[in-house]
Amino acid sequence: MLRGNAVVAQSGGPTTVINASACGVIQEALRKDAIENVYGANNGILGILNEDLFDLGQEDAETIEGLRCTPSSAIGSCRHKLKSLEESSAEYQRILDVFQAHQIRYFFYIGGNDSMDTADKLNQLAQSQNLELRVMGVPKTIDNDLPITDHCPGFGSVAKYLAAPVMECARHPEALHTHDTVTILEAMGRDTGWIAASTGLARRVEQDAPHLIYVPEIPFSEEQFIQDVRSAHERFGGVFVVVSEGIRDAEGNYVSAGKGKFAQDSFGHIQLGGVAGYLQSLVEKEVDVKCRFNKPGTAQRNAMHFASLTDNEEAYRCGVEAVKQAIAGTSGMMVTLVRESDSPYQCSTGLARLADIANEVKKLPREFMNEQGNGITDAFRRYVTPLIQGEVPLRMDGDGLPIFSRFQRQAVPKQTTES
Amino acid sequence: MLRGNAVVAQSGGPTTVINASACGVIQEALRKDAIENVYGANNGILGILNEDLFDLGQEDAETIEGLRCTPSSAIGSCRHKLKSLEESSAEYQRILDVFQAHQIRYFFYIGGNDSMDTADKLNQLAQSQNLELRVMGVPKTIDNDLPITDHCPGFGSVAKYLAAPVMECARHPEALHTHDTVTILEAMGRDTGWIAASTGLARRVEQDAPHLIYVPEIPFSEEQFIQDVRSAHERFGGVFVVVSEGIRDAEGNYVSAGKGKFAQDSFGHIQLGGVAGYLQSLVEKEVDVKCRFNKPGTAQRNAMHFASLTDNEEAYRCGVEAVKQAIAGTSGMMVTLVRESDSPYQCSTGLARLADIANEVKKLPREFMNEQGNGITDAFRRYVTPLIQGEVPLRMDGDGLPIFSRFQRQAVPKQTTES
Repeated sequence: MLRGNAVVAQSGGPTTVINASACGVIQEALRKDAIENVYGANNGILGILNEDLFDLGQEDAETIEGLRCTPSSAIGSCRHKLKSLEESSAEYQRILDVFQAHQIRYFFYIGGNDSMDTADKLNQLAQSQNLELRVMGVPKTIDNDLPITDHCPGFGSVAKYLAAPVMECARHPEALHTHDTVTILEAMGRDTGWIAASTGLARRVEQDAPHLIYVPEIPFSEEQFIQDVRSAHERFGGVFVVVSEGIRDAEGNYVSAGKGKFAQDSFGHIQLGGVAGYLQSLVEKEVDVKCRFNKPGTAQRNAMHFASLTDNEEAYRCGVEAVKQAIAGTSGMMVTLVRESDSPYQCSTGLARLADIANEVKKLPREFMNEQGNGITDAFRRYVTPLIQGEVPLRMDGDGLPIFSRFQRQAVPKQTTES
Repeated sequence: MLRGNAVVAQSGGPTTVINASACGVIQEALRKDAIENVYGANNGILGILNEDLFDLGQEDAETIEGLRCTPSSAIGSCRHKLKSLEESSAEYQRILDVFQAHQIRYFFYIGGNDSMDTADKLNQLAQSQNLELRVMGVPKTIDNDLPITDHCPGFGSVAKYLAAPVMECARHPEALHTHDTVTILEAMGRDTGWIAASTGLARRVEQDAPHLIYVPEIPFSEEQFIQDVRSAHERFGGVFVVVSEGIRDAEGNYVSAGKGKFAQDSFGHIQLGGVAGYLQSLVEKEVDVKCRFNKPGTAQRNAMHFASLTDNEEAYRCGVEAVKQAIAGTSGMMVTLVRESDSPYQCSTGLARLADIANEVKKLPREFMNEQGNGITDAFRRYVTPLIQGEVPLRMDGDGLPIFSRFQRQAVPKQTTES
């Protein structure tokens, strides 16, 4: 049995259940004899580079358990991307040095494909130096775009949360006599339409919203869009449209790409915005119908108050499994979710090589969208319905609002002179 | 005892609890011997003008009870505004004629101040013609801007719903190492800041969001705003700003007024939009920090999935009380909520003359905002906290999403030849 300390870190954008995964890692690691201390890295990989660690063993059990109903990244995240082993060799080496200084033998990294890339390279470097380090990835992304795994923790909750306001708001045009409004909901999804498509669950019968859904995988045509809205307006009166922030035209240009100095994040991803506002103008100008838009923005990725219990429990399970696997000797792998059956829904965990996850993007399959490319198919409904089942119980305060966990963050004394 | 039929109608924008009020009216009216049939008017006052009524007595009890957890206007709303008795005399007379043709002796109108104006004029006209008609108003507006009543059904739910994502999303910048983002939440509120101010509840300790709140009652200065954001950014890192859609400058001009042919609704109210986008540009240009915005839009007024139980129960109670009062002989009045105490919170119902409610707007009192005009005071916290207590249980379907009530709408045969 490999004995030593463990570090758990979170990376990238927050989700509703990233802390449920952290809870699984922390609780399981604290239970294991092989692991002496469990440290959190303040702000992801940066916390390791800066040797900015805190002792999760000093946090009280209630705070840790409360992570299961706390959104966003309680340990602290970052968007610091390491490059190749050659280009960022000093940083990778620094991480391994910090690990050595603190007897870190287990590293659990909760994140998306960029994070899996970092974890994979750390694992490679440690192996090449014959260091005893076990690196495990725990999947996390609302975008549901990691390969191999059936789905990603974080996705089910955003799917559930976004379908609810579609149902609720779509009663709005229905309720007004004039029936003359178009509502556009801008969903997250830079490269994939998983999130936008999932709102299709709200459409139980044909007149239900959303009447139209547009995703980045299918080239967006303004002419077709105008035609679709006109036709839905004639048919249903009020029209409810859901659009991924990342839709692009046949040439691959974003329909409304961000401009200016903040138009890219530090990973070089284009920051999108304004697509709903742009389409609003288009509808008012070309269809001559009043149009409004809703843009839940970051609310959708953090919506603990209507999160999927299934997603939450799977996120937790992935965390627990990562610890079990690491202690059993696995390294360089990410825990995956493996669907056994749709109905009844059964899902187990599996493993994928970090290298096979890193920097791959799983697109929404064409067969999950209808022929016209503006709505979902029954196959997608079967895929996504099990993922939104149940609601996560909140811890409520006497003030009518939820309580979220916050760590005390007792610092681990530094052992290296670098910083 | 005045015997006859009753009509219940809904008007204006939807809320989370307008159907809870309708449920109170319908259930109480169906219990009363004085009332033989209870009709719904399809799409508010238009349903009466068009003699487009349906028989609520034919709806099953479960559908009616389900109204308590169904957002938006289940009976059907409209934004058709009647003018003065002189200008719209034919329409008012038509309504009374339809009422006579259907032996309508009780009219319950659930709406905001425009609707109370219509109800008041109908009541006046009926009295001047010695018709036996009892007209009762049931308050409804997310804006919380009706005079006399302590607060309005619909407000508590939007307050609760909007405070939750502020808490959830504000963990987002906290969680990212860079701490360098400004998030702007655009809240509804064309003329008043009640909704934007209510998000202040999320701020339990000083570093909590929202760090800054701007309301229409306090003239907005771009220079002060930039200064406020800079200072909050230095102090807290990530900054979370909540802004009413209706903020305006010292000259009374909207900070970003809607332009073009859809810029006004049919009541002549200016349709707002784009203030968050405008402020986003301002922050990025002047404060030189990345900024994003969330615009929940109509989601906030329909958010059944995180509605206030207190608000819901009070809405129901107002509906029941309207029926009781009408049968006891009251007419030309709106049911009000009368706060007896803050802690423990106790609230009874009262009555106000429709004429005293109509077309009046209750602004957010200056003492509910801090001296700088960018945050709430403890007085406001005491006012609003009781209104967001408890959550409304949803009826969930096997698909992980809520079930909402929909009427069968069995039409009442027309009795008049006009249409």
